[in-house]
Amino acid sequence: MSKVQLTVDQVYQLAHACLVANGCDEANADAVAATITAAERDGCPGHGLIRLPGYIATLRSGKVDGTARPTISRPLPAVVKVDGHGGFAPLALNMSREDLIDAAKGQGVAVAALSRVHHFAALWIEVEALAEAGLCAMACTAYMPAMAPAGGTKAIFGTNPFAFGWPRKDAPPMVFDMAAASMAKGEILVAAREGYPVPTGTGLDKTGTPTTDPNAILDGGMILPFGGYKGSNIAMMVELLAAGLVGEHFSYEAAQHDNKDGGPPRGGEFLLAIDPSKIAGPGWLDHSEGFFETYLGIDGARLPGARRHANRKDGARTVEIPGDHHAKILDLTKGA
Amino acid sequence: MSKVQLTVDQVYQLAHACLVANGCDEANADAVAATITAAERDGCPGHGLIRLPGYIATLRSGKVDGTARPTISRPLPAVVKVDGHGGFAPLALNMSREDLIDAAKGQGVAVAALSRVHHFAALWIEVEALAEAGLCAMACTAYMPAMAPAGGTKAIFGTNPFAFGWPRKDAPPMVFDMAAASMAKGEILVAAREGYPVPTGTGLDKTGTPTTDPNAILDGGMILPFGGYKGSNIAMMVELLAAGLVGEHFSYEAAQHDNKDGGPPRGGEFLLAIDPSKIAGPGWLDHSEGFFETYLGIDGARLPGARRHANRKDGARTVEIPGDHHAKILDLTKGA
Repeated sequence: MSKVQLTVDQVYQLAHACLVANGCDEANADAVAATITAAERDGCPGHGLIRLPGYIATLRSGKVDGTARPTISRPLPAVVKVDGHGGFAPLALNMSREDLIDAAKGQGVAVAALSRVHHFAALWIEVEALAEAGLCAMACTAYMPAMAPAGGTKAIFGTNPFAFGWPRKDAPPMVFDMAAASMAKGEILVAAREGYPVPTGTGLDKTGTPTTDPNAILDGGMILPFGGYKGSNIAMMVELLAAGLVGEHFSYEAAQHDNKDGGPPRGGEFLLAIDPSKIAGPGWLDHSEGFFETYLGIDGARLPGARRHANRKDGARTVEIPGDHHAKILDLTKGA
Repeated sequence: MSKVQLTVDQVYQLAHACLVANGCDEANADAVAATITAAERDGCPGHGLIRLPGYIATLRSGKVDGTARPTISRPLPAVVKVDGHGGFAPLALNMSREDLIDAAKGQGVAVAALSRVHHFAALWIEVEALAEAGLCAMACTAYMPAMAPAGGTKAIFGTNPFAFGWPRKDAPPMVFDMAAASMAKGEILVAAREGYPVPTGTGLDKTGTPTTDPNAILDGGMILPFGGYKGSNIAMMVELLAAGLVGEHFSYEAAQHDNKDGGPPRGGEFLLAIDPSKIAGPGWLDHSEGFFETYLGIDGARLPGARRHANRKDGARTVEIPGDHHAKILDLTKGA
């Protein structure tokens, strides 16, 4: 398969042009293109250009408004409510970030609740931005049912990512961003294509029977949570925070309301930011640096996100995408 | 082995008498005995009377002050700081609960940061109390190093429990309380006694090599997190919240400062409470009830904590403890 090499700037230009050609205004196109570009820059292609056709599908079907302008309210000093008005999440996140940071620094802790957004990106982007502002941060979002609870035989959870960040002193923040699923859908697709089995516990077939056959999981089956019932607990927490607390669709509701255009459904996102300087007090950063130093002194221990930051430092790296995918994006850039 | 049958009231009386005989004042004895009793009442013997000798060891060694009176401050409306003054955690939790509930209901979200406490109980007790007050709640605490990070070969994490709760309408709150460890130490002890292997991924031997031999894990080895690197991320988050954010000992620091009397080290606890009515607004409870109804309609799906609540309803049940353990407690009740 032929490959196309792009610089990070070219990734942004390509994504931006494609979004504008399909109905995004400048603010939305910039926010989404920057999110796609950050993923490619950091070596996370699963959240990069590969998502662009999904974004475009939602613009073309009319499910997402590419000109939506989010509105922000502060019903209480520690609560930031963000109504995305049916647009993509990145602009809502960008526009509300300063409010959330201000709320957390002023009140010690603050929640941002995003509703009526369509989230189709990695969570580490918003968590890292909060941690870079000196805050401890959490984020999660639900999606559409793809995962059965531990012990159960029917999908009710999304893959339900959960992300957490903590500031570092002379290093990029420690950020993890993980799905509550045992395996990413992309990895299961690869196993199916290559013809090898997936580990026990990865998923169930359409009758709810455990299987190691990736095709059986993909053909009407479902993924299982990571780590058995404990991962299932994390998936349930994500539903309750991103939907129950925010007041948006649970994954099973999102599926009922979605038009099945292949792009992200309407949903919510939960963000939490806490200012350690207001709780532990001065010295908190040196204290946690001592922990990280001890941790990194352990043979084989790696900090989450380290690979991303190594890729980012290598600023001259080129992004390689399959030729047919590049051709498809160029075609989408012609507009509907 | 002979067994002794106790009513739930007798559990409380026994624990209370033993604590008072070893230096607890009424307030502390009542708080700890109630915590032990709640665990036995709900069929969680691992946090019940079996912990009493550990509590008593810390009183006798002087590590814990059985007459400590926690002090509470509100540096910001959404931040509750609790200094346990070197006492057990239950009294600090009881005394600060109304402040945390008041803060969360007034501000929408609030943090309680407990320092200088000795925590030796389940977390579901404090999380359930917050959820019964209509709040979404999280809690976590670190301990002493027993667990290596995923990929690492040296213990740095405690078993690091994390608990989450959500209110229900006509049912006890949904609460999960889970260690970040792959297996409880008690279960590994049972496997060693019975002579059967533990699953791959449970732990490492003292050289850092994976093993399925429970004796090799117990003999200077270490437990691994549940679910590989994702569970390891949860363990790290617990350290950063319960120690970094609270401004208390990380697990590795707790071990450095502990007198090794066998009881709980000095540490911190992080609690978060959020009022869904201030974020999702009215209707939030019916909305999440719809989710639980759909969830419980799935074959094989069970809500965390369901077993505890079933045991609790069976109020006439008796608690059975081994005769030698009962004799040991009676002996401890004579005082030092």
